[in-house]
Amino acid sequence: MNPLQELLDGLTQPDGEAAAAVADRAADILRPAGALARLDQVAVWLAGWQGTSVPVVARPAAVIFAGDHGVAADGVSAYPSEVTAAMLAAYRRGVATINALAATAGATVHAVDVGVGVPTGNLRSEPALDTERFAACVAAGVEAVAALDTDLLVVGEMGIGNTTAAAAVCACVLAGAPEDWVGSGTGVDAEGRDRKIAAVADARRRTADIVDPIELLRHVGGCELVAMAAAIAEARRRRIPVVLDGFVVGAAALALHAASPGALDHCIAGHVSAEPGHRRLLAHLGMVPLLDLGMRLGEGSGAMFAVPLVAMAANAVTKVATFTEWFEAPPA
Amino acid sequence: MNPLQELLDGLTQPDGEAAAAVADRAADILRPAGALARLDQVAVWLAGWQGTSVPVVARPAAVIFAGDHGVAADGVSAYPSEVTAAMLAAYRRGVATINALAATAGATVHAVDVGVGVPTGNLRSEPALDTERFAACVAAGVEAVAALDTDLLVVGEMGIGNTTAAAAVCACVLAGAPEDWVGSGTGVDAEGRDRKIAAVADARRRTADIVDPIELLRHVGGCELVAMAAAIAEARRRRIPVVLDGFVVGAAALALHAASPGALDHCIAGHVSAEPGHRRLLAHLGMVPLLDLGMRLGEGSGAMFAVPLVAMAANAVTKVATFTEWFEAPPA
Repeated sequence: MNPLQELLDGLTQPDGEAAAAVADRAADILRPAGALARLDQVAVWLAGWQGTSVPVVARPAAVIFAGDHGVAADGVSAYPSEVTAAMLAAYRRGVATINALAATAGATVHAVDVGVGVPTGNLRSEPALDTERFAACVAAGVEAVAALDTDLLVVGEMGIGNTTAAAAVCACVLAGAPEDWVGSGTGVDAEGRDRKIAAVADARRRTADIVDPIELLRHVGGCELVAMAAAIAEARRRRIPVVLDGFVVGAAALALHAASPGALDHCIAGHVSAEPGHRRLLAHLGMVPLLDLGMRLGEGSGAMFAVPLVAMAANAVTKVATFTEWFEAPPA
Repeated sequence: MNPLQELLDGLTQPDGEAAAAVADRAADILRPAGALARLDQVAVWLAGWQGTSVPVVARPAAVIFAGDHGVAADGVSAYPSEVTAAMLAAYRRGVATINALAATAGATVHAVDVGVGVPTGNLRSEPALDTERFAACVAAGVEAVAALDTDLLVVGEMGIGNTTAAAAVCACVLAGAPEDWVGSGTGVDAEGRDRKIAAVADARRRTADIVDPIELLRHVGGCELVAMAAAIAEARRRRIPVVLDGFVVGAAALALHAASPGALDHCIAGHVSAEPGHRRLLAHLGMVPLLDLGMRLGEGSGAMFAVPLVAMAANAVTKVATFTEWFEAPPA
């Protein structure tokens, strides 16, 4: 059996009692009913997956998977593939954007090489990953999450060319015209965008007979997309709540969602990016992002900006008096 | 001269060199050009007002002004006036939402009584504040800010009935139908909303001959609105950047903006609330909010949710390597 599909067997469910306890407390909290309704929902969600009536974000962590793409050789990005390795080194040296954001949010950063300098097959003409490499990427995603001690996981990525892979995953899994899913990524020009559209169209033609979304992910995704999907699935197995980042993460998550409805119940969208396909994808996933600030960086950054919001949403229920507490026994 | 108008004389300006230095650094930062453009603008704004090329949010503070309103007797709120005092006590005991949010964001909370239990005149039939009480509220706003040591100020409020006062300020300063500015506040029913609209219509009729926005604020605002306007103006004098909270704060700020264009250059909108007038007001002020999460609490809460975003925006420029630093002298 496909090792990623296997992770989705017997999906864990949230702790309904913990979630209900937080919902009850939120309904009695010392503020007008529903005044922070959207954030109360975040607190309830967090409680369910953390399995506690006192949800908290004390040990947030970001895991960033990096890999290279054969399709990058076709000029689909504003940057050369070498930038993937340079950015991976920057994450590890702690000098990239995600490091500064994580430090501010009290989070750790874990950068995982799943194929930097070893590009995948070119998704337009061949499977991005053979089954062996696919399995290795799944294992890497699982291991990365298994090694963490975290109560809120940010999943992010780096890989020159990977918005093309993400667009291909979306176009193949959800159909729709390639141009619906192709944006300018890190800032490619109009001709580059045309090359992206052509690559996605080729990928669709090549995989027209495949219906299994996980198999489509292997064919037109990439190492970091597969590792992210595995990380999200492993987080689900461990009931770790996840904050999704941008379009590429969303495309990896989409494969899980399409393969197993409800597979993303432990995930929220940290933000919606400037990449037009991301808004479309979130609508399909039924996710309303916390932030809408036109970000288009990846590396977990948009999700990390949302981490303090999740922490505050939890504390706004657990660390605020209820009407009952306040009016029945106000502190002296 | 009007003491609030006086505060607006000779508006301070941001440090253009500091702002330009941060803009230059942001343009060379180790990420695709413009990938965090909106947040880079926040960092540049912060640098200008803090007067440093290394902007930081190290000592955020919230000042919450509370006062009661004569118009509350007309049934314009879902809650009785006594709740104002109860919430002021909750802020001071540290058990309210703003306290939990501030603790998470590393901010302090300062609650200032500017008229709790001493309602203003009923804005529909008489000036909310006479000139003496108005001056006292201005002084309270100034003193509250003068007493703070902060690098980012959240201005918030509490006052049963004050969304009616805020709607009256907007309707009187900007014209437009009263119903354009009246929402359900903390959750008033349809009949209560009709009473709010009637009160605002009366206030407009009563003040139809007044054009000075500061004078309109005195006539149809309230103690905490005047104190907030003064606090915002005093922050400007001291070049302290300000995060505005919701509709009531926005209405107080509007009076400054209308009296002196540019008076809010040191302010950003932390969020747009569920109160429909707030979105309309921000559009008039030319402000794009950082958050849009349907909050409708007040007490500085929506702005406090935005404080970590501002901190992260600054650190994403100051604490991330530039392309120049990374490629010319990568750390060993």
